[in-house]
Amino acid sequence: MDLNTLQSRFYTLRSNKMFELFVVMVILFSALVIGAKTYNIPPNVLTVIGWLDVAITLFFLIELTVRFVGEPEKRSFFRNAWNLFDTLIVVVSLIPIEDSEMALVGRLIRIFRVLRMVSIVPELRLLLNSLIKALPQLGYVILLMFIIFYIYAAVGASFFAQINPELWGDISIAMLTLFRVMTFEDWTDVMYETMTVYPFSWLFYLTFIFLTTFAFLNMVIGIVVNVMENEHAQEEKEKALAEGQLTIEDLSNQINELKLIIEAQNKQRDEV
Amino acid sequence: MDLNTLQSRFYTLRSNKMFELFVVMVILFSALVIGAKTYNIPPNVLTVIGWLDVAITLFFLIELTVRFVGEPEKRSFFRNAWNLFDTLIVVVSLIPIEDSEMALVGRLIRIFRVLRMVSIVPELRLLLNSLIKALPQLGYVILLMFIIFYIYAAVGASFFAQINPELWGDISIAMLTLFRVMTFEDWTDVMYETMTVYPFSWLFYLTFIFLTTFAFLNMVIGIVVNVMENEHAQEEKEKALAEGQLTIEDLSNQINELKLIIEAQNKQRDEV
Amino acid sequence: MDLNTLQSRFYTLRSNKMFELFVVMVILFSALVIGAKTYNIPPNVLTVIGWLDVAITLFFLIELTVRFVGEPEKRSFFRNAWNLFDTLIVVVSLIPIEDSEMALVGRLIRIFRVLRMVSIVPELRLLLNSLIKALPQLGYVILLMFIIFYIYAAVGASFFAQINPELWGDISIAMLTLFRVMTFEDWTDVMYETMTVYPFSWLFYLTFIFLTTFAFLNMVIGIVVNVMENEHAQEEKEKALAEGQLTIEDLSNQINELKLIIEAQNKQRDEV
Amino acid sequence: MDLNTLQSRFYTLRSNKMFELFVVMVILFSALVIGAKTYNIPPNVLTVIGWLDVAITLFFLIELTVRFVGEPEKRSFFRNAWNLFDTLIVVVSLIPIEDSEMALVGRLIRIFRVLRMVSIVPELRLLLNSLIKALPQLGYVILLMFIIFYIYAAVGASFFAQINPELWGDISIAMLTLFRVMTFEDWTDVMYETMTVYPFSWLFYLTFIFLTTFAFLNMVIGIVVNVMENEHAQEEKEKALAEGQLTIEDLSNQINELKLIIEAQNKQRDEV
Repeated sequence: MDLNTLQSRFYTLRSNKMFELFVVMVILFSALVIGAKTYNIPPNVLTVIGWLDVAITLFFLIELTVRFVGEPEKRSFFRNAWNLFDTLIVVVSLIPIEDSEMALVGRLIRIFRVLRMVSIVPELRLLLNSLIKALPQLGYVILLMFIIFYIYAAVGASFFAQINPELWGDISIAMLTLFRVMTFEDWTDVMYETMTVYPFSWLFYLTFIFLTTFAFLNMVIGIVVNVMENEHAQEEKEKALAEGQLTIEDLSNQINELKLIIEAQNKQRDEV
Repeated sequence: MDLNTLQSRFYTLRSNKMFELFVVMVILFSALVIGAKTYNIPPNVLTVIGWLDVAITLFFLIELTVRFVGEPEKRSFFRNAWNLFDTLIVVVSLIPIEDSEMALVGRLIRIFRVLRMVSIVPELRLLLNSLIKALPQLGYVILLMFIIFYIYAAVGASFFAQINPELWGDISIAMLTLFRVMTFEDWTDVMYETMTVYPFSWLFYLTFIFLTTFAFLNMVIGIVVNVMENEHAQEEKEKALAEGQLTIEDLSNQINELKLIIEAQNKQRDEV
Repeated sequence: MDLNTLQSRFYTLRSNKMFELFVVMVILFSALVIGAKTYNIPPNVLTVIGWLDVAITLFFLIELTVRFVGEPEKRSFFRNAWNLFDTLIVVVSLIPIEDSEMALVGRLIRIFRVLRMVSIVPELRLLLNSLIKALPQLGYVILLMFIIFYIYAAVGASFFAQINPELWGDISIAMLTLFRVMTFEDWTDVMYETMTVYPFSWLFYLTFIFLTTFAFLNMVIGIVVNVMENEHAQEEKEKALAEGQLTIEDLSNQINELKLIIEAQNKQRDEV
Repeated sequence: MDLNTLQSRFYTLRSNKMFELFVVMVILFSALVIGAKTYNIPPNVLTVIGWLDVAITLFFLIELTVRFVGEPEKRSFFRNAWNLFDTLIVVVSLIPIEDSEMALVGRLIRIFRVLRMVSIVPELRLLLNSLIKALPQLGYVILLMFIIFYIYAAVGASFFAQINPELWGDISIAMLTLFRVMTFEDWTDVMYETMTVYPFSWLFYLTFIFLTTFAFLNMVIGIVVNVMENEHAQEEKEKALAEGQLTIEDLSNQINELKLIIEAQNKQRDEV
């Protein structure tokens, strides 16, 4: 059997709905195995799970091979970010890890295999892509928010570091504390503490909350307007595509035609 | 009196506005009885409430019988999910429960009778139906959110189980803890605890909060856009239905008519 | 000077912008006096404040009299809810209160005088009216939310009353506790407590949070869509009012006119 | 070299993209220096940072001079609020501060230099301007919210001051406590405390939460509608600008033209 036949066969296989469903089932099963491992389980079940783990790893290796061999153009395979992600996950999970330090990384890799769900189910891939696409348009709002955070963290770390170094010790800890204030998580405890030294420090917290809430609102509205516009644009497109629908242009052409007829009529008579 | 006469009489009764209002009053009264039982009440009042309970149960049985007998097509009666729900509630509340274990279930059934309010008032039924209809369209966002939760819970249960088994003991407890983090409920306490062992675990919480907030926002916007589109579609429909309103098509027809007249005119003259 | 002259003079006075501004200043001043009273102030200042209070009360009495006498139609004066509110506030603050129990009510009345700001400034009155107008349209969502609260409170009071009577003692306390859960205020403390007895009670809280969040979202979206529609309707109205703008109807009339001319032309020639 | 040549040269320099990028880099570097100072750093590094600080101050002075000299019309330079802000920051950071009290102010000024980022990057300036523009339109909602806060704070300070002076001592502390209640931050602790004295004080908190949430929602919706309208208006403008697009007016003119031709035709024949 030559390579081309293999390629076309594998291409058929990977486009098969049943094959896709089977892969999804294996991913779901691997998710269950991961979940089961977090419970206290007897050693003999743990051994079975170990074998299942190896089986899943091998299945993913075979599935990826099918995918790669089935690809008509090998180069474009790795241009797809999802394929790269799949390959990375499969390759790393093949490396035998004995070291206890690295064992954690191995566990992480096994968990990230669940993310393959997104790379397999087209609707999820579409959803994630559209989420990622919405991000850059919010770039400047995020930048502005970061500047607000940085300035307030710098002020906080300069003034409140002596009061509570665990919350305001340096600029990175201060930023974490400010994120906490932004989520309203026990923010009054943070405030009352600094108000004992600087009685007007409530101004610091209130202005911060107002600024970040306002910026956050702006971001949300930015996304909403963006989504709405896309919907609107698509609607317009569909309208334009709707066959046979008359536009004002069409009417104008009709009237012009009429004008030509009348003018021709006039000319004819004049000649008569 | 034959069955058909009974059916048509009961049909008239159940369509009667006063009957509907009376049923709503009984449901409201049963809600008050349920509420009263949660207070410390003297035993003799409790006896009265017990009798009222039986009376309400009997009334609901009669009302359901009226509804069923009044139904012209018996088969379609149980096709309606609300009728099924009503029947279930009434039948279960008829079962005499003595066992203390089951007594709780009996109490639950009595409480769920208040939900009959939704099945009686058409506006509430409509509202709930439209809420339920909006859900499946959000299916993939909910699935994506579940995948995010599952992966983070697996990571959390793998790494933080030794630090605090009550919060990260297994994957299901970890998911509950993550839901708590998502609602910003004392999430910094959870974070500070794990940061003593893994100083960079704030990354775990921050990325989780960003991802879930973003997915939640997306869900909300999805609902908004969906509702807006429905409104818009309905508006368009109403516009189309608006009697006598002229469209561009009508204008085009008028111009064509004019053209025919002029052409006929020309032809006539040519013949002359 | 007869009554009619007085009426027209007072009407002019109350329509005067300077008079309105002066009333706003007095209201602002009365707000400051109320604020000042909450601080620890020396007794002599307190005496001055007491005199100011009497002066403000008298001024409001005079202002209301001017308003009432200036009103051309006395009957319509009390049909306006704001006027009724003003009269009530002024009349009640005239009653001398010595009793310590009633002193609190007297203080409340003085505070509510600040609300007169809303009845004086037309923009605030407009804003509040539009807010109140939006409420009834949300009636059924609020009713549905109340049903959800009532059922969950009944379940909570039935099952958790023994665990913590302070939170679940009776149905009204349980509803307050559920409102707390809805605002995510230390809701995990409430949950963990009941989970020690009923390990699956997290289902109770999670379903409650999902239902109320979903209903709340629906309410918000309802308001948004409502506001948008109002804006849209107003826009359409403005468009229609825009003078000289041609509609498709106008075009149709023009074409019809043309048709009549051509037909008249034909007839004329036929007669020739 | 005369002043005019210098002006045009500096104008070229300040319009240079590379120069702008370099200024942004220096601002970023100054932000890093500020961040670094909040960590525990050895004294010799601190000395280096001190020198860097002086260097940055000097660079900003030079940059501002270039900007000012490069400005064709000196008067309009200070009409720009951003230029005023830049000048203020640079001038104040030039003042040598030895006093420990004033040292804090000096530190603040250094931190605010990061805000120059906004004055340099045009996109951020645009974003901030649009945020500031949206504020006044919300003026009356903010005023209404302030009135709600003031009245509730006055009531709270009058009734609850004896219960907990730290939360309700005077009207300004009471307003801070109410802001805390509005953010749902441990608001039940505040409520349970006053409920021991006034059992119905939950009404105070619940009505406050409903009113502020409703007003806040209204504000958000106000912003959304405002943004949408701006988008819509811009769209309409673009549509109007789209070259060659026909309107109903154009059609009407075409039909009128036709009418004139036909009428001329009629007249001509009548004359014949």
